[in-house]
Amino acid sequence: MVVWMGTTLTSYTVTSDDTVEAKSLSGFAWAPNDGRVFNWHPVLMSFGLLFCSSQAILIFVTKPYSHHVNKMIHVACHTCAIVSVIVGLVAVVRFHNEHDIKNFYSLHSWIGLATLLVFASQYALGFLAFFYPGVQVKLRMLLVPYHIGLGVGIVALVGITTVAGVMEKLMFNRSCNLHGTLDGLKVKGYQSWDCVLGNTIGLLILVAVLSLASAIWLSKHSPSVSEDRTSDHDSDSDDRDETKPLLKDTALKDDSKHN
Amino acid sequence: MVVWMGTTLTSYTVTSDDTVEAKSLSGFAWAPNDGRVFNWHPVLMSFGLLFCSSQAILIFVTKPYSHHVNKMIHVACHTCAIVSVIVGLVAVVRFHNEHDIKNFYSLHSWIGLATLLVFASQYALGFLAFFYPGVQVKLRMLLVPYHIGLGVGIVALVGITTVAGVMEKLMFNRSCNLHGTLDGLKVKGYQSWDCVLGNTIGLLILVAVLSLASAIWLSKHSPSVSEDRTSDHDSDSDDRDETKPLLKDTALKDDSKHN
Repeated sequence: MVVWMGTTLTSYTVTSDDTVEAKSLSGFAWAPNDGRVFNWHPVLMSFGLLFCSSQAILIFVTKPYSHHVNKMIHVACHTCAIVSVIVGLVAVVRFHNEHDIKNFYSLHSWIGLATLLVFASQYALGFLAFFYPGVQVKLRMLLVPYHIGLGVGIVALVGITTVAGVMEKLMFNRSCNLHGTLDGLKVKGYQSWDCVLGNTIGLLILVAVLSLASAIWLSKHSPSVSEDRTSDHDSDSDDRDETKPLLKDTALKDDSKHN
Repeated sequence: MVVWMGTTLTSYTVTSDDTVEAKSLSGFAWAPNDGRVFNWHPVLMSFGLLFCSSQAILIFVTKPYSHHVNKMIHVACHTCAIVSVIVGLVAVVRFHNEHDIKNFYSLHSWIGLATLLVFASQYALGFLAFFYPGVQVKLRMLLVPYHIGLGVGIVALVGITTVAGVMEKLMFNRSCNLHGTLDGLKVKGYQSWDCVLGNTIGLLILVAVLSLASAIWLSKHSPSVSEDRTSDHDSDSDDRDETKPLLKDTALKDDSKHN
């Protein structure tokens, strides 16, 4: 996304005599009325909602540290995401206002706003229930599956909104399927480098969403767990149950070693 | 989607004197060189991958009948989806070829193709492993979590591709953010009815994906199950485990009552 916005972003215009004019829109800036303010939007949104939030989720899939440490990393990554998303949102609204472009008319903006609302609610509820001030263990246990279930759903929403954004930019810039005379050569159905890169980014988002959703599911349903469960229902069979870490955490809290 | 394609689909062109010309593209046809052949594409794709496949998944969430009957409905719905998708794919390729439009240049087409490949693989593997000829119970138990995990991921891919498709159509038709003279009135940043409907459909897809992903998760992790599991690990605690129905099915099979 950084490479796309930073170096290859180009807008194509076809003039009345069929000449394709290429105008570079790449690079980053934060100066007033600089069009490159926009370019922070895709970079920060995908850094926050795709990269940071994926890491926040994956920490509970791989579980490399103690439950308490993993939880701190989970909250920290999602907080990074929130900060990144707020600046990314400011970037696009500022760009629109400075260039007299209407806000929130496209499908990308509608579903983006809906996604942000769901994400922000999930963050606020998660923060209050599991982190600070935190609720009773019984209630937290009750909330955990809803938190994860909604989380899986939000992974999908983020994927939908990001791809819609990539798509919107490609269509605005007319980067795909160009007809006319480009750099002295006659082209028909020409896909610019910008288009190929944008489409590839879209495919990578698809792979990321598919992998993440499957990884979350499998972390709770590895075949070994299923086999254990059908055998003798010993206590080992609940080793990867989502309620277990919560209880571990509570045990640690009772010992006054954490939090 | 049917209402959109059937009655409101309109393409807007802005002429050199800033007049916005509206041309209806709505309705359905299957005659050679009729542009309305295209309109079957969004309708059939979303009927297959959103409606039929959702029903196929939901039958295992709500579990209204015996495991055997639910499974038959699951396979039947997904088979409906496959048939619908094939005709929908034929419609768009035929439309492109008849109107000299390049195939597979847009992001929607790239991610759509990737989604269809993953969906077809999942269908083929699921059919062979769980339906006909079917593999050993131990191996099926091993495969179930992968089948469901990938299924949740595919729900997200379908959402991404569908919204990208809606978006593409809206941008092609210039239905949103129109400037110029429309029906004698001066408009600026005008959103046509077509655009509002398309954006609303996009939001509904978002809600559907969020609900479906969360519903799948919660069907396997209802709070009551979590509570049961932490209590005494009795056999009731595995009532909603995904391996249980498989074994039930096998028991039925052994009695030579089914299949």
